[in-house]
Amino acid sequence: MDDPKINQKLEELLDLIEKNLYCFFCKTEPKNLYEPIKYLLEGKGKRIRPLLTLVSTGLLNGNIHKAIKPAIALEFLHNFTLVHDDIMDNSDLRRNRETIHKKWNISVGILSGDLLLAIAFQNIIADVGLEYCKEVLLTYTDSLIEVCEGQGFDLDFENRQDVSINEYFMMIEKKTAKLIENSMVIGGFIANGKLEDIRSLAAIGKSLGLAFQLQDDLLDLTAVNPKFGKVVGKDLVEGKKTFIMLKAKELFKKQDEIDLLNYFFINHGLKPEQVPAMIDYLDRNGIFDITKETINGYFATIKEHLNKFEDNLYKKLLNHLIQSLLNREF
Amino acid sequence: MDDPKINQKLEELLDLIEKNLYCFFCKTEPKNLYEPIKYLLEGKGKRIRPLLTLVSTGLLNGNIHKAIKPAIALEFLHNFTLVHDDIMDNSDLRRNRETIHKKWNISVGILSGDLLLAIAFQNIIADVGLEYCKEVLLTYTDSLIEVCEGQGFDLDFENRQDVSINEYFMMIEKKTAKLIENSMVIGGFIANGKLEDIRSLAAIGKSLGLAFQLQDDLLDLTAVNPKFGKVVGKDLVEGKKTFIMLKAKELFKKQDEIDLLNYFFINHGLKPEQVPAMIDYLDRNGIFDITKETINGYFATIKEHLNKFEDNLYKKLLNHLIQSLLNREF
Repeated sequence: MDDPKINQKLEELLDLIEKNLYCFFCKTEPKNLYEPIKYLLEGKGKRIRPLLTLVSTGLLNGNIHKAIKPAIALEFLHNFTLVHDDIMDNSDLRRNRETIHKKWNISVGILSGDLLLAIAFQNIIADVGLEYCKEVLLTYTDSLIEVCEGQGFDLDFENRQDVSINEYFMMIEKKTAKLIENSMVIGGFIANGKLEDIRSLAAIGKSLGLAFQLQDDLLDLTAVNPKFGKVVGKDLVEGKKTFIMLKAKELFKKQDEIDLLNYFFINHGLKPEQVPAMIDYLDRNGIFDITKETINGYFATIKEHLNKFEDNLYKKLLNHLIQSLLNREF
Repeated sequence: MDDPKINQKLEELLDLIEKNLYCFFCKTEPKNLYEPIKYLLEGKGKRIRPLLTLVSTGLLNGNIHKAIKPAIALEFLHNFTLVHDDIMDNSDLRRNRETIHKKWNISVGILSGDLLLAIAFQNIIADVGLEYCKEVLLTYTDSLIEVCEGQGFDLDFENRQDVSINEYFMMIEKKTAKLIENSMVIGGFIANGKLEDIRSLAAIGKSLGLAFQLQDDLLDLTAVNPKFGKVVGKDLVEGKKTFIMLKAKELFKKQDEIDLLNYFFINHGLKPEQVPAMIDYLDRNGIFDITKETINGYFATIKEHLNKFEDNLYKKLLNHLIQSLLNREF
């Protein structure tokens, strides 16, 4: 990041997001719901989705202050999925802190997630009547449906041996990429963008979301610094059928490789002591490189669409955000 | 029901509701979410909330076909709360059939509930732009927030010994009455009703909701026919702090009564064999009669507000619905 203005603008937007996160609700009772919601929001997330909304509005020379409510609603939606997914995945940690259903219980997890979503809807619906409102609300609801369906497919895939790479991409497109795509599209709508520009924002968001997910899968196996409550090889132990493992199914030829892979698929995961061998097999079959190339392919798409926009500070900031997301090492 | 037209109109509205329930979604995949949703909707509910919406629109001489989407969305919202509440309450049966989290699992329960709500929002938001839309959407979202908060208080009360009757009413107002109230209010908005009429609809709905809940609590202890998967005294065994039990705390004076009541509060419920004695104590302290009188008080409020409306077939139908809800014996 050469330009100090970019950093300054990023800080400014993050500040705007943090300040507005708590404006969505002023209630404190019932405590067993509002305390977990506050706890969740206080766990510092990267705020990628609201940032992308604001930056997309700014990219199209729109008024970012008009975008703040939908941006916060998107962060709420994301957090809603985290709370419910953590229950389904039986996760103990989120952002290095105890998950809500562990700190409280499953009922509190379900219900505070529901309330978080309700509050998000209340806030963006209050803006009904503004010119861009219908598109924003429909796109917002579309994200919610896609993210639920994506998680549904993900749960389904856990019990299936025959998941294809195409199905995997369909699933992460719904579960991860759609919300990132729609965060940018909503920013575009608020700037009253042309259809062509909205389409480019969608293409950037979708590619970014897919690349982000592949990066996540890759980092699980190659991260140098297991921060954020992550443990190297966690996905392998949990039996997650990531792009990497589905690619291994295509490419593994040696008997010892195939045996370990079959173990992984049949037993829904490896024992921790089997992880290093699997990482070695994946590496020598070039699967980490293939994954990096695929990520680079998405990055090329992003660049192509980004080039269509006129230069401004938000374009530089978007470029910086994308670079830092795709270059993160943990 | 003397007038055959009332019965005919009721059948017509119920038909309209059933036919439109499945128009909200045409997807079938992922099967692990859309199958539970279909299963849930096929379990014949009483459809009270959508009926109240349609009847309220008709009462104010509005076009009931304009009310069908919000009516269905309210039924979806109600069903969403049932799926999530059944997980929290660990209930095995709903409408005499296995609950979703028992038939499938908790993850499917959480997620199909979420998706049901998402689909409801998608359908009513598609109508953004219609003149009554903002009021409808805000009232709808308000219902969702209240119902979440009500369930939150209900969970909280389970662990508290000092719940007051006022707190109990605040809780059931949120958890049960608000959605019934808002179902009527939304019907009124769609008919473009005057503020005065909307207020009367709200008063009717709120009283009906509260009376309905007290009736439910009463039937748990006095039902002659334990249909709908209910078992007599279930609330006593589960330790539910209903109006009846909070009233017992005020009125029980004899030592054997107080001992059993303390057992109930301290042990979060009675043993099944203790239920008949408790029912006897409640009866001889006149608590069933007090509950019936309270219900009759709500009924008087309903009647008073209903009288303000001009006679039409929908008014007769509403009156019939209210009578049959409050006179049900199981």
